[in-house]
Amino acid sequence: MSPYELEQEFAELLAGSTPEIPSKAEFIAAEHLVDLVGVALAAVDEPAFHSLLRVYPPSAAGDGSARAWGTGINLARRDAALVNGFAGHFHDFDDDETELAMAHVTVTALTAALTAADSRPGTSGRQLLRAYILGFEAATCLGRLINPLHYKSGWHASATLGVFAAAAASGHILGLTPNAMRHALGMAASFAGGLRSNFGSDTKPLQVGHAVAQGVLASELAAEGLTSTPGSLLGPKGYVSFYGDGADASAVLAAFGAPFDLIGSGLTIKAFPCCTAAHTAVDGLLSLQAEQGFKAAEIEHIVCWVDPAVPNILVYDRPTTGTEAKFSLPFCLAAAAVFGRLNVTEFSDETVVHPDVWALMDRIAVQTDPGLPKGDSGISVSSRLSVTLRDGTRMERFTECVPGSSSRRLDRTRLFKKFQACTINVLGSGQTKAAFDALLKIAEVEDCRNLLDLICGQPAIHRIEQEQSVRARAK
Amino acid sequence: MSPYELEQEFAELLAGSTPEIPSKAEFIAAEHLVDLVGVALAAVDEPAFHSLLRVYPPSAAGDGSARAWGTGINLARRDAALVNGFAGHFHDFDDDETELAMAHVTVTALTAALTAADSRPGTSGRQLLRAYILGFEAATCLGRLINPLHYKSGWHASATLGVFAAAAASGHILGLTPNAMRHALGMAASFAGGLRSNFGSDTKPLQVGHAVAQGVLASELAAEGLTSTPGSLLGPKGYVSFYGDGADASAVLAAFGAPFDLIGSGLTIKAFPCCTAAHTAVDGLLSLQAEQGFKAAEIEHIVCWVDPAVPNILVYDRPTTGTEAKFSLPFCLAAAAVFGRLNVTEFSDETVVHPDVWALMDRIAVQTDPGLPKGDSGISVSSRLSVTLRDGTRMERFTECVPGSSSRRLDRTRLFKKFQACTINVLGSGQTKAAFDALLKIAEVEDCRNLLDLICGQPAIHRIEQEQSVRARAK
Repeated sequence: MSPYELEQEFAELLAGSTPEIPSKAEFIAAEHLVDLVGVALAAVDEPAFHSLLRVYPPSAAGDGSARAWGTGINLARRDAALVNGFAGHFHDFDDDETELAMAHVTVTALTAALTAADSRPGTSGRQLLRAYILGFEAATCLGRLINPLHYKSGWHASATLGVFAAAAASGHILGLTPNAMRHALGMAASFAGGLRSNFGSDTKPLQVGHAVAQGVLASELAAEGLTSTPGSLLGPKGYVSFYGDGADASAVLAAFGAPFDLIGSGLTIKAFPCCTAAHTAVDGLLSLQAEQGFKAAEIEHIVCWVDPAVPNILVYDRPTTGTEAKFSLPFCLAAAAVFGRLNVTEFSDETVVHPDVWALMDRIAVQTDPGLPKGDSGISVSSRLSVTLRDGTRMERFTECVPGSSSRRLDRTRLFKKFQACTINVLGSGQTKAAFDALLKIAEVEDCRNLLDLICGQPAIHRIEQEQSVRARAK
Repeated sequence: MSPYELEQEFAELLAGSTPEIPSKAEFIAAEHLVDLVGVALAAVDEPAFHSLLRVYPPSAAGDGSARAWGTGINLARRDAALVNGFAGHFHDFDDDETELAMAHVTVTALTAALTAADSRPGTSGRQLLRAYILGFEAATCLGRLINPLHYKSGWHASATLGVFAAAAASGHILGLTPNAMRHALGMAASFAGGLRSNFGSDTKPLQVGHAVAQGVLASELAAEGLTSTPGSLLGPKGYVSFYGDGADASAVLAAFGAPFDLIGSGLTIKAFPCCTAAHTAVDGLLSLQAEQGFKAAEIEHIVCWVDPAVPNILVYDRPTTGTEAKFSLPFCLAAAAVFGRLNVTEFSDETVVHPDVWALMDRIAVQTDPGLPKGDSGISVSSRLSVTLRDGTRMERFTECVPGSSSRRLDRTRLFKKFQACTINVLGSGQTKAAFDALLKIAEVEDCRNLLDLICGQPAIHRIEQEQSVRARAK
């Protein structure tokens, strides 16, 4: 098949009603929905989120609008897509796919689907899950064609692939024809952007929000009949040859949905709100500590062996802000040891300058080990730790799999604990459990807007309005 | 200086009040303003423009809104930026810079400035021109660092550089501090996207509209305090190393504004609404025809020699749509010969299938000549024609400079003729001359909103509302 025929086939697969979505995929997808909503709500009280909201004037409810989660504020649909995508990725706590897309995928695919569903009454939960799963598949298919070169060379795949995930998911809910879906994907190719060099600042989540908004826009414009040029995705000078090394798409498309990557290689629900590349090391240290009962002050030094690619991902040896700290292996290990946990609160700017954390960072050495077991991406997520206490005790820990990954899925208790920690300030204790249970049952929902009502409550509106009026008076 | 210091210096130059803008630059800038407004208004009656407007719900006038030119419709500022940028580039008739940015620059820099000024009462014409000129300079500076490799490899520089032009111009009007300007430029680096593979469809002007909107957004977010990571523009893995070959910025910044590129190498005001790469050939053929008085039917055959890079830019041998035709040298030559002119109306889908044009295309051969004189870009804009008539007459024509370029500027009569042809349907004959004269005097204007009133008139609102209600009834 020519690249043009392959591109058309890809659009047909994403727009079409076949193949069937297995119920196992729906079951898994619902857990990822819960997780995304949780981590997005955790951003609602952040000053950066409020700054972002200030540039988007609230719009009237109704035609073309959707809500910013956790606030109830109506925004133009694309603006809501950006704001919710930004929130979903703000804490870097949203799920992650480290082998194929090498990207946070749910935040783009599912945010686009939810935003489209919020503006399109009557979208069922099952339709939503289908749109999300197909959007996810769009990212992993394209990821197979351009990674690991793409990610390794410095592109932020969550954004540069996410725009396709969002276009496919939103386009599916809008009911695009295969031809319109192809136009949407071609447009998305021109909207793709995002650099890893912007990690450690507000622009990282902004890149993700931008990908969601532009994916939604591409699907809307294609629905209105605007066109892209055939070949812009898979043709000789199209996206895949541009952002990767021009791999052949036929084998990848032949394997589409058999099985869906969401139930095949799967996604990691993050146990810690920092870059996934730090997760096995943090998990190893926390489990050693839980087992052996030592305190941070007792540690003489830690040596941590990681894949040779990791120091280029976790680039901050001595972070100065919470966002930089998420990309600092010494910080993540030190903070975990000092506090005995690693949640959103551990990445505050206060913790970053905490003297105990700072002191322990100086006693942590990061080394690379090319022999750690590698996955499809060619980068190992495994790590080895050697912890030496002041009394001379020496412990080792090899951690192969990331907690929350498909081979070590978080159980419902741990999933709820994470959801609760993320949402309690926004939803309150009563609504937290109700929202968790309802979100898990999304496949039975007749109109996703009812579900979104649960996470777009009045209290949050009041809080933000209050704050805005305080700010207005202060000016 | 380190890349980080250079990046900061770049931001300071773009945000600062020095260097002085010479009055010659203001004089030239005003002509480019007239030209941009004209070509944008020529798009207002296009079906694609109306399709685009349908996804953007009108917003209330006032805070954060700006108008879609030629319609009077208020949109959220970034949406207006996208819509106006799309219109400005729709016919590919907006001015072009072929040596440094290798991009249409005015459409991004000036649309961003005008949109910002429309939403910020009291912005003077002089402030606007300054913002435009600095935005223009942002694109040419960065263009020097990444071109010609960037454009040649397939990036659409009008979009990938335009986002910086827009961020700088809008940021200047918003009064960003140098530090905020650096954050805006860093964000813009993550929003940069656009592929030449999408030439020949609605996505080409859409890429430009996207660049304007995202540049405006970057400046607004930076004004609200959102951050990007130092080095995302000029650092080791930043935009310049990513989208080009990582050239050193120090020499380029040392020459900033001395002279401004707008009055140095300058911009081409396009005489024909097709890709600039076709212009010397079309100009040569039209002038031969005017001098010798032959008709298209008398032509036996034409051979046209162009730079070896041109067939990769003018990719459509046999275009099937008006947008493809803009990137077809055989079409542009054949249509010019058949109609004796090449204006917006010659790129209708009807003309594309016109039998006389089609017949002549078969008698036109495009050849490459590596010996044509090259500019800074390494690509020649010159062309050589050999026209043989059926009676055996043979004529040659070498055309070195693009009509409308800085060495062959269009005179005011020709500038008005172009403006009039573009705007007459929207402004009517009375307002056309008044708008032309007023726009040229922009340097004296106290509030740009008054100037924009002239091109955002009531009549156009009525026309579009009428059409929308007809459409609503038809549904």
